[in-house]
Amino acid sequence: MSRFFSNKYSQLIPYTPGEQPKDTKYIKLNTNESPYPPSEKAQEYAAEAAKNLQLYPDPECRQLTEALAKGLGVSSDEVLLTNGSDEILNFAFMAFCDDSHPAIFPDITYGFYSVFAEINGIPYEEIPLSGDFTININDYIGINKTIFIANPNAPTGIALKTSQIEEILKSNPDNIVVIDEAYVDFGNESCVPLIHKYDNLLVTQTFSKSRSMAGARLGFGVASKALIQDLNTIKYSTNPYNINRMTMAAGLGVLEDEEYTQKNCKAITENRSYTADELKKLGFSLTESGANFVFAKHDSFDGKELYLKLKERGILVRHFDKPKISQYNRITIGTKEQMQTLIETIKSILEGK
Amino acid sequence: MSRFFSNKYSQLIPYTPGEQPKDTKYIKLNTNESPYPPSEKAQEYAAEAAKNLQLYPDPECRQLTEALAKGLGVSSDEVLLTNGSDEILNFAFMAFCDDSHPAIFPDITYGFYSVFAEINGIPYEEIPLSGDFTININDYIGINKTIFIANPNAPTGIALKTSQIEEILKSNPDNIVVIDEAYVDFGNESCVPLIHKYDNLLVTQTFSKSRSMAGARLGFGVASKALIQDLNTIKYSTNPYNINRMTMAAGLGVLEDEEYTQKNCKAITENRSYTADELKKLGFSLTESGANFVFAKHDSFDGKELYLKLKERGILVRHFDKPKISQYNRITIGTKEQMQTLIETIKSILEGK
Repeated sequence: MSRFFSNKYSQLIPYTPGEQPKDTKYIKLNTNESPYPPSEKAQEYAAEAAKNLQLYPDPECRQLTEALAKGLGVSSDEVLLTNGSDEILNFAFMAFCDDSHPAIFPDITYGFYSVFAEINGIPYEEIPLSGDFTININDYIGINKTIFIANPNAPTGIALKTSQIEEILKSNPDNIVVIDEAYVDFGNESCVPLIHKYDNLLVTQTFSKSRSMAGARLGFGVASKALIQDLNTIKYSTNPYNINRMTMAAGLGVLEDEEYTQKNCKAITENRSYTADELKKLGFSLTESGANFVFAKHDSFDGKELYLKLKERGILVRHFDKPKISQYNRITIGTKEQMQTLIETIKSILEGK
Repeated sequence: MSRFFSNKYSQLIPYTPGEQPKDTKYIKLNTNESPYPPSEKAQEYAAEAAKNLQLYPDPECRQLTEALAKGLGVSSDEVLLTNGSDEILNFAFMAFCDDSHPAIFPDITYGFYSVFAEINGIPYEEIPLSGDFTININDYIGINKTIFIANPNAPTGIALKTSQIEEILKSNPDNIVVIDEAYVDFGNESCVPLIHKYDNLLVTQTFSKSRSMAGARLGFGVASKALIQDLNTIKYSTNPYNINRMTMAAGLGVLEDEEYTQKNCKAITENRSYTADELKKLGFSLTESGANFVFAKHDSFDGKELYLKLKERGILVRHFDKPKISQYNRITIGTKEQMQTLIETIKSILEGK
C-alpha cells in the first residue's frame, strides 16, 4: 500500500479470481467456463464490429438490450447490460445498500459479495448455511436488510425454489432482494418473471457460463423500470461506455443462436450427471448441484491434497481454504472427454498411483 | 429515483455522454473519435480472440501490459490497463481522495471529474480557469489536495508545459497529481517519463483517440509500482476481469502498428491547422488546441444556434450549456474532406443560406 492510499481501504482484501494459467496445458475445470466455443454468429458479429472500433459504442446498448428483453419477456427499460455480472452486482451494492440498508448474504456463497460490501463501506452480515449447505429461508424472512442470494448458490450449486424466494421477497417489501442467477441455465427456474410482481426484486445473470462468453464480459440485471433507472444513474456516474462494440455484437449473435446455447446446456447437465455418478462410486459426497459444476468431498481423501494432486497431473479445479468447505473441491463441468479424464485421474490418485 | 435508491446519491447528476445518433447520416464531430478505422492488425487479432470467448480473459493482462510498458519505457508493474480511461480515473478518485484528501480541478475541464467526486462522496473544489481559458498553475502550488488536470485540457485543448506540471508535482509532495493525457498524442509532450522522478504522479491515457479504439474501451494509468498496486486493489475489489479478450487482442495489434497511429496523428494535426485557419478567416476565435478538436466561438454568431444549425445540416459538434463557454463549440478534427464540408456548411450558415 502506498502512503497515498485512502485510509478507508486500509482493511480491504480484494477478491481472488481463480487461477488463469499462462499456458494451455491444463484441463481447466476451475472457473466455471463453458467447454464449448462461442456461437459462430457471435464470432462473426464480433469480427465485423472490430472494423469500426474508432467509434464509441452505443452507451444505451439499444439493439442488444431490445433483443435480450424480448427473449426474457420483459421490456427494454427493465434490463441493464453491464461489463460482466460483477459490474451489475457492484452497482446493486452501491445503489441499494448503505448504513441504513446493510447487506446480508450466506457465509458460503460467491466470495465477491463481501468484497463489494467492503469497498463500498457497507455494513454486512453473513448468515451461516445449514449443515447440509442449504439456505434456510427463515434466516431471511422480514430481515429488513438488502439481501443477496446466488441461486443456484456457489460453490455449492444448491438452488432454492422460486416459491421460497417469493417468501423472502414478500416478507421484505421495503428492501431489495438480489437474486444472482449466474448459474440458472443449467436446469433451474429463473425469477425473471417475478420482477412484474415484486418491485423489490433485482435478478442478475451473465453471458459467461451457459453462453460461452466469459472472455467477452457481458452481464445484466432485470428489475422494475425504477430500479433499472437507479442502476443507470450509477452506470452513467462511473463508466457510461461500459460495454465495448465487439462484446455488444457478440451478445447479439449469441441471442440469435439460442438453439446452440440450449444444446450446450443440455450437454453440460448430462455431463454433470455422469460426473456426479462416477464421483459417488469413488467415495465422494456431493451437494445436489443445479450449476455447471459439482461440489465434492471424498470420504477419506483430503480436499486440498486432491486439488494439488490434480494440478500436478494437469487438471485445475477450485479449492477454497475456508475451514467449513476446505474438504471440498468445486469442479467445473467440461466435455464428456474432460470429465472422463478427470475421473480416471482421480481414480489413480485415490489408488496412490 | 426508486424508493430503494440510497440517499447518499440523492443529489447525484450523472455524466452526459455526447450524442450517439442511431443512424449514420451525421458527420460526427462531437465525441473526439478518430475518423480513421482501427489498425488492420487490431481487427485481425480481435477476430481471432473472438474464437475463444468461452474462457475468461487474463485478469492481469500480462501480454498487453508488457507490450505497452515497453513502448512507454516503463516496467510492467508501473502500468494498469482499464476499461477505458474513465475507469482508471474513477479508480484514482476512489484510491487517492477522501475527506482528508479532497479533489481539485479546473472549473472548465472534463465534465466527468465532478461526477466521479460526487459518486464517491469526495469533497471537491473547482478552480476557475483564467480569462483566456489557460490554467494558472499558481492555483495548484502547495494546495494539499488531490489534483486532476487534463493535459491538454478539454474542451479547450490548451496544454501546460511539462515544466509547469513539475512545479505542481514538486509543491505537492504529499498529494497525488493525476495528469489525464487523453489528448496527448496530437503534438504534446507526455509526463510519463516523470513517474520515475515523482512518486505522487499518476498519468492516464487512452486508446480511444489517437489509436482509433473508442469502441473497444481501453485506457491505462502509469505511475510508481506502489500507486499501481493501490489501483489494482480497487480493480480486484470491483471488476477483476475488466478488459475482455477481444479488446486486449486489439490493443496488442495497435501497439504492433505504431506507424499507422503516427500517420493518423500527423494527418489529424494537419487537419487541425487547416480547420483553425479556415475558421479564423470566417470570424471565429479559437483556443490554441493541442488536441484532436478545436474550441471555437464566432465573433457574432451564437454558439448554441451554430450547433443546432450544424445538426440540422447533418454535422454534429459538441456544445456545452455552461455559461462561461456557451458561445463556444468543440469540434472534433475529422478527415480533410469532413473538415472541408464543415467549413462550407458554416460559411453557408453565416451567410444565412
